[in-house]
Amino acid sequence: MGASENLGQGPPPPHSRKRARELVLGLQDEICNELESLDGGQSFRTDSWERPEGGGGRSKVMREGRVFEQGGVNFSEVHGEELPPSILNQRPEAKGHPWFATGTSMVLHPRNPYVPTIHLNYRYFEAGPVWWFGGGADLTPFYPYLEDARHFHRVHKQACDTVGPELHKVFKPWCDEYFYLKHRGETRGVGGIFYDYQDGSGVLYKGQNSEGPAAQVSRELGPHPKSWEQLFELAKACGKAFLPAYVPIVEKRQEQAYGDRERQFQLYRRGRYAEFNLVWDRGTIFGLQTNGRTESILMSLPPLARWEYGYVAPADSREALLTDLFTRPQNWFEDATLEERCRPHQAVD
Amino acid sequence: MGASENLGQGPPPPHSRKRARELVLGLQDEICNELESLDGGQSFRTDSWERPEGGGGRSKVMREGRVFEQGGVNFSEVHGEELPPSILNQRPEAKGHPWFATGTSMVLHPRNPYVPTIHLNYRYFEAGPVWWFGGGADLTPFYPYLEDARHFHRVHKQACDTVGPELHKVFKPWCDEYFYLKHRGETRGVGGIFYDYQDGSGVLYKGQNSEGPAAQVSRELGPHPKSWEQLFELAKACGKAFLPAYVPIVEKRQEQAYGDRERQFQLYRRGRYAEFNLVWDRGTIFGLQTNGRTESILMSLPPLARWEYGYVAPADSREALLTDLFTRPQNWFEDATLEERCRPHQAVD
Repeated sequence: MGASENLGQGPPPPHSRKRARELVLGLQDEICNELESLDGGQSFRTDSWERPEGGGGRSKVMREGRVFEQGGVNFSEVHGEELPPSILNQRPEAKGHPWFATGTSMVLHPRNPYVPTIHLNYRYFEAGPVWWFGGGADLTPFYPYLEDARHFHRVHKQACDTVGPELHKVFKPWCDEYFYLKHRGETRGVGGIFYDYQDGSGVLYKGQNSEGPAAQVSRELGPHPKSWEQLFELAKACGKAFLPAYVPIVEKRQEQAYGDRERQFQLYRRGRYAEFNLVWDRGTIFGLQTNGRTESILMSLPPLARWEYGYVAPADSREALLTDLFTRPQNWFEDATLEERCRPHQAVD
Repeated sequence: MGASENLGQGPPPPHSRKRARELVLGLQDEICNELESLDGGQSFRTDSWERPEGGGGRSKVMREGRVFEQGGVNFSEVHGEELPPSILNQRPEAKGHPWFATGTSMVLHPRNPYVPTIHLNYRYFEAGPVWWFGGGADLTPFYPYLEDARHFHRVHKQACDTVGPELHKVFKPWCDEYFYLKHRGETRGVGGIFYDYQDGSGVLYKGQNSEGPAAQVSRELGPHPKSWEQLFELAKACGKAFLPAYVPIVEKRQEQAYGDRERQFQLYRRGRYAEFNLVWDRGTIFGLQTNGRTESILMSLPPLARWEYGYVAPADSREALLTDLFTRPQNWFEDATLEERCRPHQAVD
């Protein structure tokens, strides 16, 4: 880190908005291009749109591909006169300032139940003197494969480590905490990383659950100030980690034969995805309640989903293993019992 | 009305809880029995459950019936030490008092896209000296039939009229207001009736939108005090209106032949149903956020639903008519232009 860089809460560097915008726009392009080759069937359809209150975006959607039943990758760059109360509560210093936000978000719903659903989001905010980065990626398998979860976490840990070895220790449990369906007692999937309100100051965890594991680890680690440049590099490294984290899993699973049982369980679990996004996801709710572009916000919903009253996975089945182990926070790298529990179900690799 | 009855805000009569409980329990039984004969294929499976914090319920669920692809009818009777803040905001007098609530709610998802989805809910609360009734029923067609909407409204208006000719004037627009997907600019369907916080005092409308049509009509009508007995009779009359309001529509439409186009549109519109219930329905959100019984609360979700980015119904199609006319508040009885708009699509009867 150069001596000239500001650690924490200094003003953003020149061209900060332009650089953030180009980063997330570049991620959208790079990821979509690679996903198109991977799919080999369909390509993304692009919708550009303007936001009446200021700014606009570009939504890219794929339907009925070979690999991807439906998927969308949004880019947006929006601005306004004052942030809504839900964000001002978290960042009161932003009050009275016009704001700017840019980001890319993506959800892919694969057809084959052995290929996990994936979500990614990286974003940047400015409001007067205040700025912050947020983002992350999380994986939602329908059938359990320990090595897929480990691979996804490993690649994201490596990306975080390029900026600081302490980051992943906080962003991994923060992800488990954020993508949590309280009414089901389940995480959305095996997690990944999640971070928000990263302005470079103080401790890393800036979420709402001061008693959770992410907050605890963060307190133990103490302050870890970062510069704007470092947090920009973090978004870049994590964004670029997406393809190596996900594509090998798709390539490994996409030809695995499946039947109606696997399809039905996939549709059932997609119901959970819809529940999370509509009931708990702050981004979705914020967008819907503040006149966001509905079709782009709800691009994350599954092409087809199923609900069944009182469903319980058969005892000792792969579906039960998915529910009991892959929708709970785990220490994927170090917990040796995971292999023991997965092995009887051919769910290691 | 007898001279001995209390109009508005007096204490409830003796055995009020028992009477309310028996009313809604009786409704659940009566409706389920009739729906079983109507379906002719499947019967309801009953789950009785207890609430750890006090009370319990009985959920009846039908799956893969001849007429009903999935449907659930809940009864519950619960109590606790203090109402949650979301209700205390509306009824501050209830603060510090133990509370009691009983109700029945139902959602049926028919298989044939020409048969509308239906929802019903009648409930009764007590908290110390405070008591109130709430409830209603609303119809969500997938294909437009003006006479079905009119019939459903007519039967519910007649039920309201037995207690007071002013009631339907307020409860009909209140229903349009409540079952509204703000992010889509659509009502959930053709509506019906909805009322809440009916404690017999003051004006009829006790919702949150003081500028909406329901509030306006209610203000113009002025105070309409009611006794506990009258509001009990209202719940009874409306609850008993359900079968004559809905069964004839099912009988009329259940044999109508349909193809994949109609099925796909039904699944797409069911996505809206899930969106309303998960994003906007106060009852659902309240239940999920306060440790309610998840499987019973989410019994209302469709067995199968579909999302498609950027879908727009073909111009001048029945699907467009449904979207443009049957998801907007209408004056079903008096607006003569409705017939003109429906006739070209064979959507009158």
